[in-house]
Amino acid sequence: MNLNSLLKKSLLKVDEEILIRLDATVPLLSKIGSHLIKVKGKRIRPSLTLAMSAQLDDFSRNPILLATAVEFIHTATLLHDDVVDQSNLRRGIKSANIIWGNEASVLAGDFLFAQSFDLMVETKSLKALSVLAQASCKITQGEFLQMQISNKPNTKISDYFSVIGGKTAQLFGASAQSGAIVANGSFQQEKAAFDYGYNMGLAFQIIDDVMDYSSSKTKMGKNQGDDFKLGKTTLPIILAWEKSNKLEREFFLKSLQELKQEKDDFQKCCEILRKYSILNRCKKIANDFVIKAINALNEYSENDYKKALVELANSSLSRVN
Amino acid sequence: MNLNSLLKKSLLKVDEEILIRLDATVPLLSKIGSHLIKVKGKRIRPSLTLAMSAQLDDFSRNPILLATAVEFIHTATLLHDDVVDQSNLRRGIKSANIIWGNEASVLAGDFLFAQSFDLMVETKSLKALSVLAQASCKITQGEFLQMQISNKPNTKISDYFSVIGGKTAQLFGASAQSGAIVANGSFQQEKAAFDYGYNMGLAFQIIDDVMDYSSSKTKMGKNQGDDFKLGKTTLPIILAWEKSNKLEREFFLKSLQELKQEKDDFQKCCEILRKYSILNRCKKIANDFVIKAINALNEYSENDYKKALVELANSSLSRVN
Repeated sequence: MNLNSLLKKSLLKVDEEILIRLDATVPLLSKIGSHLIKVKGKRIRPSLTLAMSAQLDDFSRNPILLATAVEFIHTATLLHDDVVDQSNLRRGIKSANIIWGNEASVLAGDFLFAQSFDLMVETKSLKALSVLAQASCKITQGEFLQMQISNKPNTKISDYFSVIGGKTAQLFGASAQSGAIVANGSFQQEKAAFDYGYNMGLAFQIIDDVMDYSSSKTKMGKNQGDDFKLGKTTLPIILAWEKSNKLEREFFLKSLQELKQEKDDFQKCCEILRKYSILNRCKKIANDFVIKAINALNEYSENDYKKALVELANSSLSRVN
Repeated sequence: MNLNSLLKKSLLKVDEEILIRLDATVPLLSKIGSHLIKVKGKRIRPSLTLAMSAQLDDFSRNPILLATAVEFIHTATLLHDDVVDQSNLRRGIKSANIIWGNEASVLAGDFLFAQSFDLMVETKSLKALSVLAQASCKITQGEFLQMQISNKPNTKISDYFSVIGGKTAQLFGASAQSGAIVANGSFQQEKAAFDYGYNMGLAFQIIDDVMDYSSSKTKMGKNQGDDFKLGKTTLPIILAWEKSNKLEREFFLKSLQELKQEKDDFQKCCEILRKYSILNRCKKIANDFVIKAINALNEYSENDYKKALVELANSSLSRVN
């Protein structure tokens, strides 16, 4: 059984909790809430929280509350990202900022973020609160760094890892760790949960960045080539820059730094990536993180959730063909 | 002695804490932080937290942490408001979104908000956390309502009070209440602290809304007439609408609802406000809230902080001539 099937009951309770929390006195907020439920993503972060608690036999209300909180934090960052990036698609359908405007999206993000802390308070776990508050700080720090490396194809690979470590992997790690915390896991189990989530997050983000250049049409619900259009500095670009000759570097500077892009430039970029087998190299790096994630689970005895977590880690790579 | 003089030492510690928290690994974040310190406001919210703790003889680190947290929450909402309103001035100097762009302002707001919860966690007071998390939810709910009454001069006065109750008064109330909470005040003292803050917040916002139309140039650091330009529905407009004749109502609909404004329209609006003594009526209403705020302090025995809180409440009215 995969993780979502194993956690089906708990994930339904998370959905219920989401709806209850968004049934606010403000009609527009409820509408945005329903929209977000409708376009619901893979619920990976709440699944990590729930799975870590489940491994420790905790099926109480606390993991549900925390799982809802981490999904709210994640959704808040998506709402704000879409405003900042001026995106028009999210998970395949129109994004909230396009339907309701930037103001509503900024406010809805703030509301979800505030609600997430209200949910955490209910668990009475100061430790879980602390871990998730600090992860939230690191998310924005990662996004700041991302701004600073944007339009710089000659970025160091270590800076890229600081960015995705902050903006993606921290919340994956904290989501998993908080599940172990409320279930009274040992220090080692807490750390293992974080390590599983953190490394999964790194792999996940690398694959996400690869998908923007992968030619196969997937159900990613993003406009392909969006990263290229915005001149985002992701792993494929950084690795390609390292290999590129003078002419290719000039192309990257013109298209990604100066954003002077012509009609076929995205295709041209994809050709350079193919020439140096960049996407395969990215997948190899992602695979190394998947192995680290799986190894971290050694702190837990064999159980169905652990098996499903291993499967989840492995399947994260198959999102790109 | 006024409140800021009495709390001088503690407020300096709050400033130190602000700087420490913003001395992040991200240079741009530190720059925005220094900017915010430089343009520092009146620090009313942290003063309320500190004063309530001080009344209960708590001068420990906890009130400092909470005072920093409430200032961060407030600053986060300002950063986001400026993005949403596309403001160019805040407290008299260029606002962060103009200097660093919307993206940095949205992220800096998110960072401050996350940091505020990290600060609260340090106090280990789940009760203070709960009060401030719920206030944060209500702030955004108030701002949502504000969006919905925007450009509607025929708004009910009760809706206006829902807006300012949420967006301003809740945080004033929660700031004061959390100070009483960490200082182990009684249930009555907690409630009294909230009531003082909440009513002060209502008075403060009404006066703020009046200042946008008050002819005397003050040090408000806002562009006068901003609310009018954006068609914001504030108390002066709502009270004027109630009194207005058909022609005047047509003027309000054209200038505030359709936003078809001509050069002298702001002056024309000020004349209608004068005709019906609207600003004086607003000040009278604000005064009633000031009296409520002062009466709430009866739960506390006589002390210097209480005297200063009474003075602060009274002086909030004299911001407009």
